Amino acid sequence: MKIFKKVADIKTEIKKIQASAKTVGLVPTMGFLHEGHMSLVRESVKNNDVTVVSIFVNPTQFGPTEDLAAYPRDFENDCALLRKNGADIVFNPEPSEMYGEGFCTKVELSGITEVLCGITRPVHFAGVATVVTKLFNIIDPHRAYFGSKDYQQLQVIKRMVKDLNMDVEVVGMPIVREADGLALSSRNVYLGADERVSALALSGSFKVVEDLLQKGVKDTETIKKEIADFILSHPHTKIDYIETVNPETLVSVGSADADFVVALAVYVGKARLIDNRYFEVHHA
Amino acid sequence: MKIFKKVADIKTEIKKIQASAKTVGLVPTMGFLHEGHMSLVRESVKNNDVTVVSIFVNPTQFGPTEDLAAYPRDFENDCALLRKNGADIVFNPEPSEMYGEGFCTKVELSGITEVLCGITRPVHFAGVATVVTKLFNIIDPHRAYFGSKDYQQLQVIKRMVKDLNMDVEVVGMPIVREADGLALSSRNVYLGADERVSALALSGSFKVVEDLLQKGVKDTETIKKEIADFILSHPHTKIDYIETVNPETLVSVGSADADFVVALAVYVGKARLIDNRYFEVHHA
Repeated sequence: MKIFKKVADIKTEIKKIQASAKTVGLVPTMGFLHEGHMSLVRESVKNNDVTVVSIFVNPTQFGPTEDLAAYPRDFENDCALLRKNGADIVFNPEPSEMYGEGFCTKVELSGITEVLCGITRPVHFAGVATVVTKLFNIIDPHRAYFGSKDYQQLQVIKRMVKDLNMDVEVVGMPIVREADGLALSSRNVYLGADERVSALALSGSFKVVEDLLQKGVKDTETIKKEIADFILSHPHTKIDYIETVNPETLVSVGSADADFVVALAVYVGKARLIDNRYFEVHHA
Repeated sequence: MKIFKKVADIKTEIKKIQASAKTVGLVPTMGFLHEGHMSLVRESVKNNDVTVVSIFVNPTQFGPTEDLAAYPRDFENDCALLRKNGADIVFNPEPSEMYGEGFCTKVELSGITEVLCGITRPVHFAGVATVVTKLFNIIDPHRAYFGSKDYQQLQVIKRMVKDLNMDVEVVGMPIVREADGLALSSRNVYLGADERVSALALSGSFKVVEDLLQKGVKDTETIKKEIADFILSHPHTKIDYIETVNPETLVSVGSADADFVVALAVYVGKARLIDNRYFEVHHA
């Protein structure tokens, strides 16, 4: 497995790979890798000749009061996991390599980035869209893999790729969960023992929704209220948002008449956790 | 010469060209082509296997009070000129082909787009940067050609390409002028006979600057005042801006101690004309 720190060096490597007509899969990550990331890596390895994994804690997608400095890092362990799962190349640049002197360009989406996480994280998605654009231009992948836990991010990337005519196939992969339901996240490391128990409130909410739908409840205000009551019955929890949205546009829906996504952001102790589930609505 | 209206069709053609390892040059235009554009086309034809010219009056780079509807168009004549000058492919999409339903992404630069034309045209450069990003992604050119008359646009594109790691060489070409000095522009068609005479105020200004530099004047406030007096001595003129700027960052400079660019925007009748000149400053 080759490791590159410099844009120029990995571009030289990519040109060589392209000259031999091999396909390239990209898995963009912020490191501190877990089974969720590995499911992306394995899917890329299966479907591409070469798999590139970027490990870059991107400063521009963190707000001024967020956890950039505290964000967990373990490059050695990340590389060990990547080797074991068949990654070919790691791209691990310094922030100064990605954002040189005079840097002043951003890629920004309206609407889809101004709901859900975009409300409490107003600069987040411009940071994500910009760094992903850079990674796409540097690596020039045939396919790029993103987890569905960051559901809004996945929809933002798909929209950006379509709008800007980027020549890459965006592949969304299912959420990977612990046996008890907690969605894997690098930020789970912030959870104390009690908080770890309360964190099950997020995935547990989806069972609440299932039960309500089964009873014929369609009004999403009722659904959201029931979710809130359920989550707040767990100690250490504070709700950022509970939303029921159109799966593609992320516009809020008032009634469960068509497929929708329940998206949650909940503080459990200091950790801000997100989770979501796609609900198919079957008509009789 | 092949003409494409659809993104999917030109992408198919580009894939064929790439499969034969040919180089591609792109000349992005808004049509109503003149010798200025042709100098770009000929340079591209000289240095690339295939030259693609896009003709697209991009609505997003016009402000609400600007001349989008009135902007001159002559597709037949454009194609005749392009055939004569050796272009291989014309890309001429409809706005709906470039901006489909739900389009919400933009590429935006700060600083460099907020001076000069960016002051009176606040949405202009985001429109330019976004459409050029799309054209780069659709055509995937090795080289792209831009005229230096739109000096700020050229610097914005260069900065964007660097910031976003786009894999394209941006080539800036010299301003092409009429025999009497007027810079070629599609908007010159707006000028009445009297206005056409007054329009020489722009290129004439550079002679004023030359004379001042020769006399040892370095203070740019004095230089700008003398340019303003010269321009306003011509009837039908109204100054938008007169600036002396750093050639790369476009930051205003107070003294002519290093190379600088004089950039002008002047209304002559209804036409808003721009011109510029790069001044090298030699030290004794």
